[in-house]
Amino acid sequence: MSVNATSLRDSVDAKLAEFFASRRAVVDSVGGGYPAAVADLEAFVLRGGKRMRPAFAWTAWLGAGGEPTGDRADAVLRACSALELIQACALIHDDIIDSSRTRRGFPTVHVGFAQRHRDAGWSGSADHFGVSAAVLVGDLALCWADDMLRESGIDTDAARRAQPVWSAMRTEVLGGQLLDIEAEAGTDESVAAAMRVNRYKTAAYTVERPLHLGAVLAGAGEPLTAAYRSFGADIGIAFQLRDDLLGVFGDPEITGKPSGDDITEGKRTVLIAVALQQADASRPDHAAKIRASLGTELSESEVADIRSILTELGAVDAVERQIDELGTRAVAALDDSSIDPIAAEHLRAMATAAIQRQY
Amino acid sequence: MSVNATSLRDSVDAKLAEFFASRRAVVDSVGGGYPAAVADLEAFVLRGGKRMRPAFAWTAWLGAGGEPTGDRADAVLRACSALELIQACALIHDDIIDSSRTRRGFPTVHVGFAQRHRDAGWSGSADHFGVSAAVLVGDLALCWADDMLRESGIDTDAARRAQPVWSAMRTEVLGGQLLDIEAEAGTDESVAAAMRVNRYKTAAYTVERPLHLGAVLAGAGEPLTAAYRSFGADIGIAFQLRDDLLGVFGDPEITGKPSGDDITEGKRTVLIAVALQQADASRPDHAAKIRASLGTELSESEVADIRSILTELGAVDAVERQIDELGTRAVAALDDSSIDPIAAEHLRAMATAAIQRQY
Repeated sequence: MSVNATSLRDSVDAKLAEFFASRRAVVDSVGGGYPAAVADLEAFVLRGGKRMRPAFAWTAWLGAGGEPTGDRADAVLRACSALELIQACALIHDDIIDSSRTRRGFPTVHVGFAQRHRDAGWSGSADHFGVSAAVLVGDLALCWADDMLRESGIDTDAARRAQPVWSAMRTEVLGGQLLDIEAEAGTDESVAAAMRVNRYKTAAYTVERPLHLGAVLAGAGEPLTAAYRSFGADIGIAFQLRDDLLGVFGDPEITGKPSGDDITEGKRTVLIAVALQQADASRPDHAAKIRASLGTELSESEVADIRSILTELGAVDAVERQIDELGTRAVAALDDSSIDPIAAEHLRAMATAAIQRQY
Repeated sequence: MSVNATSLRDSVDAKLAEFFASRRAVVDSVGGGYPAAVADLEAFVLRGGKRMRPAFAWTAWLGAGGEPTGDRADAVLRACSALELIQACALIHDDIIDSSRTRRGFPTVHVGFAQRHRDAGWSGSADHFGVSAAVLVGDLALCWADDMLRESGIDTDAARRAQPVWSAMRTEVLGGQLLDIEAEAGTDESVAAAMRVNRYKTAAYTVERPLHLGAVLAGAGEPLTAAYRSFGADIGIAFQLRDDLLGVFGDPEITGKPSGDDITEGKRTVLIAVALQQADASRPDHAAKIRASLGTELSESEVADIRSILTELGAVDAVERQIDELGTRAVAALDDSSIDPIAAEHLRAMATAAIQRQY
């Protein structure tokens, strides 16, 4: 196991596969359609993704002096990998919430279960069955995240230190998701409201708390832990701001999402909030146009129009500037810390990848 | 704290309220609509129910020699009360799955959130918002169940012993719920399929595993643990069989559910499976009538017809007999064990209440 991205991904996958194998007996004992449903969950989890959360946690462990190999490292890697099971639940339930049809090039879990219902010619609503099964499978992933952490083999003191971080992370991300759906439904157009969603749904959950977890597992001191968290909060928000830009300006060929996806979905991003703030002050016509477009189907030329408006209003520049500032501040926090230099180098590279990506 | 039902309920409520208070800081730090949503969850949890799972776990603890008061007892009671947070998630998500509108005389959680959306005049589908918010709030209850167990104060050895029980219980109940929706949608009309749902969705989760948890918390020996589990599995299934009878024959004034509710909902209960088995062999006309009625709206006289058919086919007697046999066998398992006699008396009373109830 090293901090190298590809080999870390492989190691995380191996730990997850090993965990799924450990549940097989109880799942088979329940029987019926349960083993098939769990096999679907396993395929979903092992299909991948960037494994960002385990990578941040593991790098934080190394950066705080945690050993890269051996029994303790093995246990910590297992604990870090458990984050992917929380993420599996988050994605499965989020796809229900967003009524998403595909994820990573495959049908989403609820769509897959609905299809199974149709193929079997079962009675009742296939779509409702799909949602119901996906709720339960997501719940299972959430329960198993805990099991995997608890059975990771980390020692009692490390487990005791991890508990408040693990707890806060989950409470925060669920809060962030709730605020997100309220923002999409509601009327609070402020930058502050959008930023709050970024902070809890993305930054804390994706970067800050995984780093924090790695730090406490290693028994890091308060200054390094604080540096990690400061770095993580900034990079996490910058990551989301990049996502906001890609959600409007991203190339569908690269992002795999429809052009102008965030507009169509009516997402209340910081980019939109900044644009509306600006437009309300100077260009009410632009403000009206943006508001009318949110949450509606748009043609390619209408998407292009919105893009021009956002650029013209200066919202794009403002968000790019903020990403820059956050990135700079994040790296400075690391520089001031006692982090191991090789791990620091990796975190800087991960930060750059996260905020300069095109997908 | 004692084994007395009312005072135990009060003690469980106090532990739950104390736990909610302990989460307030992090919930408030997220802000927005989160504190209000969590207040709804707290009200839902504290609104009650029979607290059967904590009661079984606590009684098992006492019956295995666990002390009734003091710091250790306090921690164990907290761990037992955490079962109610799993149950909160199960109910909230089940109500989504069953599209239930009310629970305990109040709107279900998803209906409550949909109403909040309507009252606020928000945009988008109020019903979809309600489901989305209830998925997230249920997830939160599930996460907090773990937090509450982990922070209960039970010692490290007890926590280590509890882990496989806690894990198996959750994996089993989610499997049972999945089998339940598959059974309702699918075509397996066998008694075995219906019994499998009873075993995992109800018996293991409601009685057997809570008793098992109490036993391992007390460090009970293998013979007593086995006696508890055997008692629990039998009583749990008998409990569900009573539920099946009440689901068709229950008095709406007492059960609080519509007359013939299980038929209307198309539930694949053991009662129905036994009746179909019998009817297929001897009365194809009855079999056709039962199949045509499942999952459809019925008038009072149609419900009465189905009742007569089930009785005439001998299905009601068969199920009553099975409840009797299970009850007798369960009590015998306790009699053969080393359980503390006062706790045994309580378990017998709880068993009787569970299988002879009218609601």
